Amino acid sequence: MKFGLVGYSGRMGQEIISVFERAGHTLTFKMDINGEELLELPEVVVDFSQPSALVRTVEFCKSNELPLVIGTTGLKNQHFEMLKELAKKVPVVQSYNFSMGITVLRRILREYASYMQDWDVEIVEIHHRYKKDAPSGTAIKLGEELKRESPKHSLRIGGVPGDHHVFFANDGEVLEFHHRAISRRAFALGALKAAEFVLNAGPRLYDFEEVLFGGRV
Amino acid sequence: MKFGLVGYSGRMGQEIISVFERAGHTLTFKMDINGEELLELPEVVVDFSQPSALVRTVEFCKSNELPLVIGTTGLKNQHFEMLKELAKKVPVVQSYNFSMGITVLRRILREYASYMQDWDVEIVEIHHRYKKDAPSGTAIKLGEELKRESPKHSLRIGGVPGDHHVFFANDGEVLEFHHRAISRRAFALGALKAAEFVLNAGPRLYDFEEVLFGGRV
Amino acid sequence: MKFGLVGYSGRMGQEIISVFERAGHTLTFKMDINGEELLELPEVVVDFSQPSALVRTVEFCKSNELPLVIGTTGLKNQHFEMLKELAKKVPVVQSYNFSMGITVLRRILREYASYMQDWDVEIVEIHHRYKKDAPSGTAIKLGEELKRESPKHSLRIGGVPGDHHVFFANDGEVLEFHHRAISRRAFALGALKAAEFVLNAGPRLYDFEEVLFGGRV
Amino acid sequence: MKFGLVGYSGRMGQEIISVFERAGHTLTFKMDINGEELLELPEVVVDFSQPSALVRTVEFCKSNELPLVIGTTGLKNQHFEMLKELAKKVPVVQSYNFSMGITVLRRILREYASYMQDWDVEIVEIHHRYKKDAPSGTAIKLGEELKRESPKHSLRIGGVPGDHHVFFANDGEVLEFHHRAISRRAFALGALKAAEFVLNAGPRLYDFEEVLFGGRV
Repeated sequence: MKFGLVGYSGRMGQEIISVFERAGHTLTFKMDINGEELLELPEVVVDFSQPSALVRTVEFCKSNELPLVIGTTGLKNQHFEMLKELAKKVPVVQSYNFSMGITVLRRILREYASYMQDWDVEIVEIHHRYKKDAPSGTAIKLGEELKRESPKHSLRIGGVPGDHHVFFANDGEVLEFHHRAISRRAFALGALKAAEFVLNAGPRLYDFEEVLFGGRV
Repeated sequence: MKFGLVGYSGRMGQEIISVFERAGHTLTFKMDINGEELLELPEVVVDFSQPSALVRTVEFCKSNELPLVIGTTGLKNQHFEMLKELAKKVPVVQSYNFSMGITVLRRILREYASYMQDWDVEIVEIHHRYKKDAPSGTAIKLGEELKRESPKHSLRIGGVPGDHHVFFANDGEVLEFHHRAISRRAFALGALKAAEFVLNAGPRLYDFEEVLFGGRV
Repeated sequence: MKFGLVGYSGRMGQEIISVFERAGHTLTFKMDINGEELLELPEVVVDFSQPSALVRTVEFCKSNELPLVIGTTGLKNQHFEMLKELAKKVPVVQSYNFSMGITVLRRILREYASYMQDWDVEIVEIHHRYKKDAPSGTAIKLGEELKRESPKHSLRIGGVPGDHHVFFANDGEVLEFHHRAISRRAFALGALKAAEFVLNAGPRLYDFEEVLFGGRV
Repeated sequence: MKFGLVGYSGRMGQEIISVFERAGHTLTFKMDINGEELLELPEVVVDFSQPSALVRTVEFCKSNELPLVIGTTGLKNQHFEMLKELAKKVPVVQSYNFSMGITVLRRILREYASYMQDWDVEIVEIHHRYKKDAPSGTAIKLGEELKRESPKHSLRIGGVPGDHHVFFANDGEVLEFHHRAISRRAFALGALKAAEFVLNAGPRLYDFEEVLFGGRV
């Protein structure tokens, strides 16, 4: 596919280019705080940049009727309104976390936690020392899927990109779910999945779980 | 409930008594290679003994119309025929593995492996040095749920009761499922779950997954 | 060797008998709250019972000049005085933790933590839900070897016998030490090590680390 | 310090610049396949490039009497001869692995494996799917420190940078050493340690273990 990329010069942008090109896709439009460069009209636009870029991104998608994959964090109500409006014309995938593993894990917990209702459950998450919030947003989301209280333990050590452990245990056995982020490549691979999805999807606002699991939500 | 136990003097039998009594249930019938002792007619019979004990167990259940939970391993065709016959009159739960964690994990793999089709997957299992077969039967069962080849690695060290790890990984993340057996108490807790189930089930032969997940198979 | 055992009827006592007999040793004297039984004078006495039993144990060792391995917990000053007195005549090994793995790990941390002074370090320990104190005594001991503050995280889930993780991490790597107790057999094996040690040791009060590492303390 | 860097434009070179500058050091000389740039004479030279670059690196160090930290892999006898010659005049640190964690772990195994002589030991290593050799060179080195046979298991999944597990187990407990590489930053931090070391060391050829542990080898 031909793809456009907003925020191409940052680290996440570079990772997206690397992952998409390795999959045989071609960058034909790039946009940045420093300007735009259009080689050819893309088939899909990917934006992992800043909320402030969204006005121009949405305008570009709307006028060219291009589907959008948006992973920018910190969106406000006004941004979601713009996306909803755009999604009337083209498919839009919006998520704050394009990790496939975390998305799969959340769904597993949602479906299976009730079968281990009488087991104990606790969560351990490990992140680099520069992460200020604790517990992590992901640990909170995982906990919400459990539908009950779960003690959360946060380690802040070295440069760990992000580990999440969910431990279930009864008197005779332990079942542990462990997700480990290796690098931001995880999110670029998720963005690729989403870009391939919107090429064949109808106009609507989708979340990343729908990309992975389709109608089965 | 009042329960009967076949094979009460072995280690597994003692564990079952301990778990059932802690849950408020009463042992009213026990049978062993050395004889039988009937204090009061039980409401359910549990048998985790030897295939050779099955004739008498089935006879006892049939004549008293008692549901049966059977965890004996090494059953032959003739034994399954007897159980099917019995199951026309009373509910019977038969399984070679009453671990809830493994049963949940198998089902998760069956349902979710396809969403990580393009990830790599490998299995590591760790057992005590006295275990002769490798890979473990459980590792093989877990692998079957993946619907594709999965390299399996078997460690045989010390007294480890049984660890199973299933690793999924793509270029950016790892999702690991880890089951750890602590002791045979795991199976006694599963037997308890099954005993509570048959009290309210209709005549039929059930496997342990049905006990945990009900009609949703 | 011929060994005597104080507190032979409890779970720990049974484990010690099993481990010692498997190693080819013979129980020739046993003592319990219910009485004593002397088949033959033992070569060493092992006591993993109650502080209240110590008077008789020490008396027996002293009058027969027998070395002692004592793993009883909750000893008071008066008990230590008795042991010191006895140790003038025979070798005595006293410890509150006969786990070889934990003893090795403590020593490793003592010797190597300083080489990772600028790494972050945190401790996670996991125990069964019935354990009331947190962090565990072992986690505290491990932390003391680090010679600096270390955040400690305590999970209380199911029937986990006891896991201890010490994580060191810098920006580029993680070095984790993980000890897992499988069963009280660990302590029986440590007691065996100590019993073999005292057979050839001179009169003195030893701790378990000296048993493992000899003069190299 | 002022440092020179050979191979500054590659990924490892960029990581070294980032780590050294964050520590307050200044890049004053850089060399590459495309040429050299000398801003000011450095106090130490770091080379993580290609064997073919070594002639010029050694020449530069020799004529300016500058200590060298060399992490280039694939060196031949002739290269080691050059380094030995240089080391008569200035301190030189040469290693194929500048990971502090692995260096610490090797030393721990060397010192402690004998105390767990009667435990079982096995090694598991996990690397990305693009790694062709198995077991990894690091797993082999770790195994050599054990002074006995150790089964090795190699997983090749996704993008895992490199995990090494060494499991010791007896009938009652497990002691596991687990090293995890997060990124090549680990090696840049090791190079920094070595650069700080050579500033105050006498002329000699050192390996990385000496950098970490000093005279205590």
